[in-house]
Parts: sequence; C-alpha cells; structure tokens
Amino acid sequence: MVNIGIIGVGLVGSELISQLSAHISQNGTPTFKVIALMNSTKQLLSNSSYSSLTLSSWKNDLSAKGTTSNLNSFINYLSEAPTPSIVIDNTSSQEIADSYPLFIEKGLHIVTPNKKAFSSDLKLYREIREKAAEKRRFIYHESTVGAGLPVLSTLTDLIRTKDKIIKIEGIFSGTLSYIFNEFSKLDGEKKNFSEIVKIARENGYTEPDPRDDLNGLDVARKVVILSRLTGKDLSLDTLPVENIVPESLRTLDSATEFMASLTQYDEYFQKLNTTANNDQQVLRYIGVIDPIGDKSEVKLVSLSSSHPFAALKGSDNIISFTTERFPSPLIIQGAGAGAAVTAFGIFSDLFKISDRTLF
Amino acid sequence: MVNIGIIGVGLVGSELISQLSAHISQNGTPTFKVIALMNSTKQLLSNSSYSSLTLSSWKNDLSAKGTTSNLNSFINYLSEAPTPSIVIDNTSSQEIADSYPLFIEKGLHIVTPNKKAFSSDLKLYREIREKAAEKRRFIYHESTVGAGLPVLSTLTDLIRTKDKIIKIEGIFSGTLSYIFNEFSKLDGEKKNFSEIVKIARENGYTEPDPRDDLNGLDVARKVVILSRLTGKDLSLDTLPVENIVPESLRTLDSATEFMASLTQYDEYFQKLNTTANNDQQVLRYIGVIDPIGDKSEVKLVSLSSSHPFAALKGSDNIISFTTERFPSPLIIQGAGAGAAVTAFGIFSDLFKISDRTLF
Repeated sequence: MVNIGIIGVGLVGSELISQLSAHISQNGTPTFKVIALMNSTKQLLSNSSYSSLTLSSWKNDLSAKGTTSNLNSFINYLSEAPTPSIVIDNTSSQEIADSYPLFIEKGLHIVTPNKKAFSSDLKLYREIREKAAEKRRFIYHESTVGAGLPVLSTLTDLIRTKDKIIKIEGIFSGTLSYIFNEFSKLDGEKKNFSEIVKIARENGYTEPDPRDDLNGLDVARKVVILSRLTGKDLSLDTLPVENIVPESLRTLDSATEFMASLTQYDEYFQKLNTTANNDQQVLRYIGVIDPIGDKSEVKLVSLSSSHPFAALKGSDNIISFTTERFPSPLIIQGAGAGAAVTAFGIFSDLFKISDRTLF
Repeated sequence: MVNIGIIGVGLVGSELISQLSAHISQNGTPTFKVIALMNSTKQLLSNSSYSSLTLSSWKNDLSAKGTTSNLNSFINYLSEAPTPSIVIDNTSSQEIADSYPLFIEKGLHIVTPNKKAFSSDLKLYREIREKAAEKRRFIYHESTVGAGLPVLSTLTDLIRTKDKIIKIEGIFSGTLSYIFNEFSKLDGEKKNFSEIVKIARENGYTEPDPRDDLNGLDVARKVVILSRLTGKDLSLDTLPVENIVPESLRTLDSATEFMASLTQYDEYFQKLNTTANNDQQVLRYIGVIDPIGDKSEVKLVSLSSSHPFAALKGSDNIISFTTERFPSPLIIQGAGAGAAVTAFGIFSDLFKISDRTLF
C-alpha cells in the first residue's frame, strides 16, 4: 500500500478525498491509505503504526483533533512511514513548492496541481528534476495543465519515444475559453465583452479579480511548463504574453472598479470581434509552445471557423500537438478546470506512482 | 534493461525497430535491448548472454543468419533471459494471440497492436487477464484502438479512479474516416462514393479488398475491446454492426469485381448523403460503446455540422468519452492508423512496462 499525505483540503482536496474514499471502500485491497492531512491552520496525522485516517469524518476530525500546521513535522511523519509515501500539494503556494527538494530528500514522491515549481524559478525546477532522478523519486503534475486531460502524459510519451515536437498550441484557460467562446462566434446571440466577463465572474468561472485571468499569467505558466518538458527552458520573464486588460484599468485598486470601468472598452473589443467575423474568423486566446525556435507566446488571435479551436464550447480546454509523427495534429479536448477533473488528474498520477513502486 | 523480442517485422515492426534504434543510439544507458526477431519464415535470436542484436543490419542478419521460425524456441529463449522481457506481437494472427497465456506462463510481458486476443473469444480474453494478474505480468495494447492516440490509457485512468463511463463514441477506422470525410461534406467538390473508395484503395488506405473495411468488422473489434475494458462483456457475435457493403456485392469473388460493381450503388449512397446534407448534416461511420445499457453498436449515422466528428479531416480517428466527471466529453483526435503512430503506441507501452518493472 502507498501512504498519502495531503496538503490543502479545499475544493480540490475535498473532492480528491471523496474520490480516494470511493476507491478505498470499493476495493478489497485498496492501493492507497490517507495518513495525513493539512490545511493552512491545522494538520491531522494518524498514529505511529500509520493506520488509515477515517475518511468519512475527516473534516470534523481535522478541526476537532488537528494540531497546529507544521510543514516539517508533517513531512517527517510521512517520510518515516515504512512503505512508499506520496505528498500531494493541492495549494498554489510558492513556499510549499520551494520545499519540494526537501520532500524528495526525505524520500517522498510528489503529486501536485500547483504550477509554481514548474513555471517559476528555473533553478528550483532543475534542482527538483535532478534530485528526483538522483533519489529515484517521482513527481507527477498532470493537473497543472488541462486538469485531468492527458496532456503531460501524452507529451512525455512523445518525447521519450523521440518524436520531434514541432509545435504545441492550446486554449489552456477555462475562463478565457468560456469568455471568447461566448463573445466571439459567427452566429447566435451577441453580448458585450464586459457583460460576458460579468457573467463568468458571477458563475465563479473567473478569479475573484478577473484581471488575474485576463492578464494571461495563468496561461503563460502552462506554456512554460510544457516548454520546459520539451527540453526548452522558457521563463515567465521573457515569454511574450498579451495582457488583454486595457492598460488604464491595470492599476485600478479593486475588482469592483475594474468591472465597472470595463464597459468603456466594449466598443474596442467589439471592433476586434467584428473584424474577425467579417473574415469568417473568431477570436481565441491561445498559448503557443515552439520547442525548436523562439516563437513561444501567449496571445489573442483570429482563427478561421474551420479551425478545431473555433468550435470549442463552454469552458473546455483544447491542446494540439504537431509532431513529426503527427503532422495532422494529435488533439486533446475537454474540461480543463474544476474540482472533479483536477482531482481525477491527481488520482491518475497517484496510480502512476503506485504502478512504479509496488511491483 | 528490458529485453525485447519482436514477432512480425513488416511495416509496423520495421518502423518500431527504427524508433527503438534511435532511442538506443541516443541514450547513454538505453532502457531496451532487442534480442530476438521473427517473421513468418525466419527468426533471429541473439547469443546465450543475451546481447543486443545489431539493429543497423537486422534485415540482412535475419535473412542471412536467421533459422526457421519456431514460436516455442523463440519464447523459450526470451523467457530464459535474466531481466524482464517483453514479447511484441506485430501480427494480426489469431494463433499467436491464442499463445498469450503461454507467454505469460513463461514470465513474459506482452505489448501488441494485434486486436485478436481482446476482441475474439471471451474465454481467451479472461484467461489472459486472470493469468496476467496471477503472475503479475503486464499486457499493454494501446495500438489496438486509435494506434498511438492515448485512448486505452485514458479509459484505464477513468475506470480505475472510479469515474462513471456513460458513453464512448468514435470514428475508429482511418479508412472509413477518410471515405466519409471525403464523400460527405457540406461544401467542396462532390465525388461519387465508388470513386472515393477507388482513390482510397489506390493510396493504400483500404485493405486489398475494401469490403474488409466497409463491413465494419475492424470497428466492431475496437468497440468490443473498449467495452470489455469498461467491464461490459461484448462479443462480435451479438454486437449490431452495419455492414455498408451492398448485400448483392458481398458474395462477389474478387475485389476487382466488387470495385467494378460498386458504381451501381453510387446513386444509393448519394441519396443518403443528399438527405443528410439537406438537414445540414454529414454521414459518419461510428462505433458506440454503452457500458451501462445494451446500445453498443457500429453504424452509419448523420451528424449535425457542429458535431466534433463532422469537422474531421483526412483519415484521422476521433474518440469521445462522456463520463460523470466529463459531461462535456473528453475528446481525443488524430492519426489512428499508419506505421509511425502505431509503432509510437507500441513504444509508449514498452516504457509503461519498463516503468513498472525497473524501479
């Protein structure tokens, strides 16, 4: 059995525990055992014989029996367990990402949807990769790009079988997918840009401040992650990223002010849209990874109505790999955000590690 | 290092050897070592210390130094190797598929694009699964459905993380994809059905006798494979399959006669197409897997122009998974046939086994 310690038990963490719980209760010999939980204030460690926590009452138990969070004691507890142990980081914390080398040093495997370790400081990224190789520990992070969609696993297969990656393109943000799928189409009801952003925000599709989606940073992180996997070192500092927040609105203090002022730019966005539509094209916000040249970027583009990205619906992601073996690209599409599919990506990664450690 | 023995060195086998060769020559410590090759007449086994064969001259060596093919001696040689060994079956032979239980018995792992073991006799299928579980040996067959597209790996992840599979639909035949993508579209040049089949045959997209594609058996096998993976036992005997070879042409002796007579049915196919087009729809030949009910089938359908399958181009496959977690389906699309992508699927599977045996 593989021991699991979970850091971060919010939306994604709770969903993951519920998915793990179904696995554990339905399998005579479950593969996984959750022995430690932690949120920003409290942690719950099992006993010295590393029994499974009671997953049906974890929320109560964490709040009633939990002790003050302490990353060191949490990690030490996990690392002293007798069988393989995986730490799952469900946070978006840079501080926890900075501790991955320590986790590996302590003998732990890592699974995470946290993008920070793979898209921030290149030095940290390399340290994690080298230490993991040296200690033979595994780090899977499928859910950092496209949530549960098999994006990183597919890219990894292409790379290690020595296919030549020519270009990767995608709509990597569920939020921006939704906004432009609604705003820019060739037929159907037309709404103002600000109105669509408002609806997206009210439905919880955007960050509390939608500028955190519209600035392209989240997409940029995914482009950096994919590019680094191909062996090409990109950095957030140098990647060209089109920030579609109008310049004068970037410095506004509050999200409320921003939302109120965005209406002034409806005409500007409508003009872009009309120009595209007049050529039978639609607007889409895409990330491009160019493993051979230097044309990786994040930008708003016009695409012909027959392009696979033009037919996207809802908040789906779509990723297209053009390679030597797939000159007509290999395309993966589906929900790329949300707790259920993010937890699915994490859970699949857990199985990949158990496959590699339990033979 | 993992030992490899390859049965079948035609188009796919040769391409696989070339991909393996690139891996071996570019890696300081390659993961794989090819120690045995076999075609229908000859086999080439390496020495008693299981050194790698010389991949640059395998073709000459097999014909010059090869001995008469003998499946038993081939399997015994592989099974006596000191490290994990994988036998790759690149044939479409039922006889070799029937020997998989023996391969497992002898301690070998199996990777194959051969659909027979997974879509023929249910008893054989179960025997393989049970024996593999008992002996802890791995059987990967990604290339049996959609060649190198990550179809089976994705389905496996969905299943073992306990997602609920509601429906799987796909265009699973590169040949039928090409024929209907060309024949049934809403704009562009219109050709007769028989003419498109003729072009497909001349370009090598069809079997020598195109009736072997048009009868739907190949798609049916893929539907059976996917359905059995979901836990629902389908059989070729009971699956409803629409054979689009006109009834009077099924008994014609030769492919040449068939091709000559098919023109008599151009009007029939054109009528189907026009009816669909009049409703802004196109014809597509699809397989449907229904893991909950009894509606799995293989059939020619009309799909609206906005359906993801309607925009397919060339001979691409497309597979759509509708699940509890992916109500808006997870879709995978790309080349689903051809030596390069089939060998890629096999090669990826080899890595999955090395991951699981070399920790």
